[in-house]
Amino acid sequence: MVTRQDCITLDQQDALAACRDKFALPEGEIYLDGNSLGAMPRHLPARMQEVMVKEWGNGLIRSWNDANWIDLPKRVAGQVARLIGAGKDEVMVADSTSVNLYKALVAAVRLNPARKVILSERGNFPTDLYIAQGVAEIFNLEIRYVDSTPEPVLAGLDDSVAVVMLTHVNYRTGQIYPMQEITAKAHAVGALALWDLAHSAGAVEVDLNAAKADMAVGCGYKYLNGGPGAPAFVFVAERHHKDMRQPLSGWHGHVRPFEFVLGYEPAPGIESMQCGTPPLLSMLSLESALEIFDGVEMSALRKKSVALTELFIKLVDEKLSPYKFGLASPRDSAVRGSQVSLTHEQGYAIVQALIARGITGDFRMPNILRFGFTPLYVSFANVYDTAQAIAEIMESGEWNQDKFLTKKAVT
Amino acid sequence: MVTRQDCITLDQQDALAACRDKFALPEGEIYLDGNSLGAMPRHLPARMQEVMVKEWGNGLIRSWNDANWIDLPKRVAGQVARLIGAGKDEVMVADSTSVNLYKALVAAVRLNPARKVILSERGNFPTDLYIAQGVAEIFNLEIRYVDSTPEPVLAGLDDSVAVVMLTHVNYRTGQIYPMQEITAKAHAVGALALWDLAHSAGAVEVDLNAAKADMAVGCGYKYLNGGPGAPAFVFVAERHHKDMRQPLSGWHGHVRPFEFVLGYEPAPGIESMQCGTPPLLSMLSLESALEIFDGVEMSALRKKSVALTELFIKLVDEKLSPYKFGLASPRDSAVRGSQVSLTHEQGYAIVQALIARGITGDFRMPNILRFGFTPLYVSFANVYDTAQAIAEIMESGEWNQDKFLTKKAVT
Repeated sequence: MVTRQDCITLDQQDALAACRDKFALPEGEIYLDGNSLGAMPRHLPARMQEVMVKEWGNGLIRSWNDANWIDLPKRVAGQVARLIGAGKDEVMVADSTSVNLYKALVAAVRLNPARKVILSERGNFPTDLYIAQGVAEIFNLEIRYVDSTPEPVLAGLDDSVAVVMLTHVNYRTGQIYPMQEITAKAHAVGALALWDLAHSAGAVEVDLNAAKADMAVGCGYKYLNGGPGAPAFVFVAERHHKDMRQPLSGWHGHVRPFEFVLGYEPAPGIESMQCGTPPLLSMLSLESALEIFDGVEMSALRKKSVALTELFIKLVDEKLSPYKFGLASPRDSAVRGSQVSLTHEQGYAIVQALIARGITGDFRMPNILRFGFTPLYVSFANVYDTAQAIAEIMESGEWNQDKFLTKKAVT
Repeated sequence: MVTRQDCITLDQQDALAACRDKFALPEGEIYLDGNSLGAMPRHLPARMQEVMVKEWGNGLIRSWNDANWIDLPKRVAGQVARLIGAGKDEVMVADSTSVNLYKALVAAVRLNPARKVILSERGNFPTDLYIAQGVAEIFNLEIRYVDSTPEPVLAGLDDSVAVVMLTHVNYRTGQIYPMQEITAKAHAVGALALWDLAHSAGAVEVDLNAAKADMAVGCGYKYLNGGPGAPAFVFVAERHHKDMRQPLSGWHGHVRPFEFVLGYEPAPGIESMQCGTPPLLSMLSLESALEIFDGVEMSALRKKSVALTELFIKLVDEKLSPYKFGLASPRDSAVRGSQVSLTHEQGYAIVQALIARGITGDFRMPNILRFGFTPLYVSFANVYDTAQAIAEIMESGEWNQDKFLTKKAVT
């Protein structure tokens, strides 16, 4: 049996333990929802105060030059590139994940115009499927939905497929899809591979170029801690830059955006994936937040992440066996992201009871208790305390109160 | 001849003079570029500090409910609606102006599928034309470009036109297009009318519903002072809500975004114009900035705006006649927005020389000196000092220095 002291010892041995102090988590908070909204780096309020007072307030329009706002999307993209195995000229930071997915998906189907199928899995994050439905309607394509494991995806890849679009780490289960294998099979049948890294970037090791991925998108506000609704990123492999055309042909993607010529001419590189003026306050927050990753290797983060999730599963086995929880995440760490999802018919109320105790996970329909273990700020003692709290909540029936059973708008 | 004392007297009589103190303009700054980036409301840094520390840092994911982030786009839309003559359920705040234009333009051409022409004027803001080019390519449409005055636009409206897309106040000249007349002609020939209010919202009186406008978009960071790259807005008249379909079908536009069902089903109203998670820091800044307009009538702002631009033109006539300036803006205040544009072959260097004196306007290719007069914070004395400074710069040849002649990335 794992003891709390064992976990404290693990924290004492943790080379990443000091990272936790870089975040402004409330006293006593155990925050296991960084896969929904990352915690705030402690230095962010001071930086944003500087942005407000100095860059906007005093610098005004001059800050486009004097504070280098003009280079910001490219600069932040460079920070993200290292974390996902991309060249710095293959990534752009812009818009939301959904909007970037639209751009990338249209660009992909235009690169493969004879094909009529978008392949995805029916458990993909809904907005990915919704965006695909919008693209399919316009380009008269079919979406082939397969079951939510790698085998049906591989089996679904044939020479009718234009592009396979998958979220690398499934948001509900944390299952990792094998990027290299699926991309290779896609290429073998003449399809492109587009990866959503929303639950990967900053949490698991990703090497887009080693996997020969064609395109990718990802989120700035989960494991990258960029702030609520932080801008997203989009990757296109350099080999496609010459021929790619995305449909949101706004001025920031123009080859000479400030010459104000009549005709749209896309920038030759990844710059063409931009559209309008970026939300600078949100993007400057993301830039500053990414400094947390300076000097941190993704391999070290992944190692701690696996240790955290393995510990949690072990504790669930030890403490929760009487209470009819299921494990929705893979038991094999090699194919599990930085989260553990349990199932329980009273999942919603149990999550609310945990929140009332200062332990924040989230609930996903219909019965998933989702716990994200951000290795930058979650400790081994946090993991122990969470499992122990669930056991106490079940043992005492604490979850069974009206205030925990009534659903809120967003959880 | 107008004297500086005359202008000081005008300021003393100005009912809106107190609004200037609500902005954190640097000491001595004369800021005539609010049509590019609005000045910062003085209360914004404290509000954003609260957002960072309290809402993100302490509230974390709970702030979606506890700080009502979930209602933010709708709430901000309500603030904008009053300024543009729209119902509060006809406006949504989301994404950038360019992205919103894409949504609205596609929705418009889908409402009018038998028509094959998008009508615009060749002097429209480039991103509007670039977006239209992207839409035209996908839907196999033609763009009909006409000259940049109302008459060719009216003449260009025939029964081949799906939608006429115009910027209400032209960004270079400040010319106001007659919204009511053009919209009526559009409807008479079976076309829709889509208006870009980038240089209108918060600066001139706009009544979208009185004009029976079909759709509109606009900018949050110019006269609305929302902060650099603040989110934009989109309007669709209520009569189109039932049938409109925009292509960026992301989860935030879904009728039940948090039920995570497989198929996209658009929300029944203006909510369907949303796509992904909004950039909350930028949007919270916009929300707070819009409080400046509480208790301010657009009619009063417009009256002062006209007085400022009329004064400037009068001073240009009086002081600059020896120096070969042209007036690119209409002389008739009724069809001029909140800016005055001059032309001069040395326009770029003259603007730089003004900036060096603490007077910020901007330059637009090929020869336009553009001065935006935001009635909330520009004084009549500012107008006098600007005209006087230009006269001195021309008289002394101060503009003719290498440091003013060399172009920067963004101006």
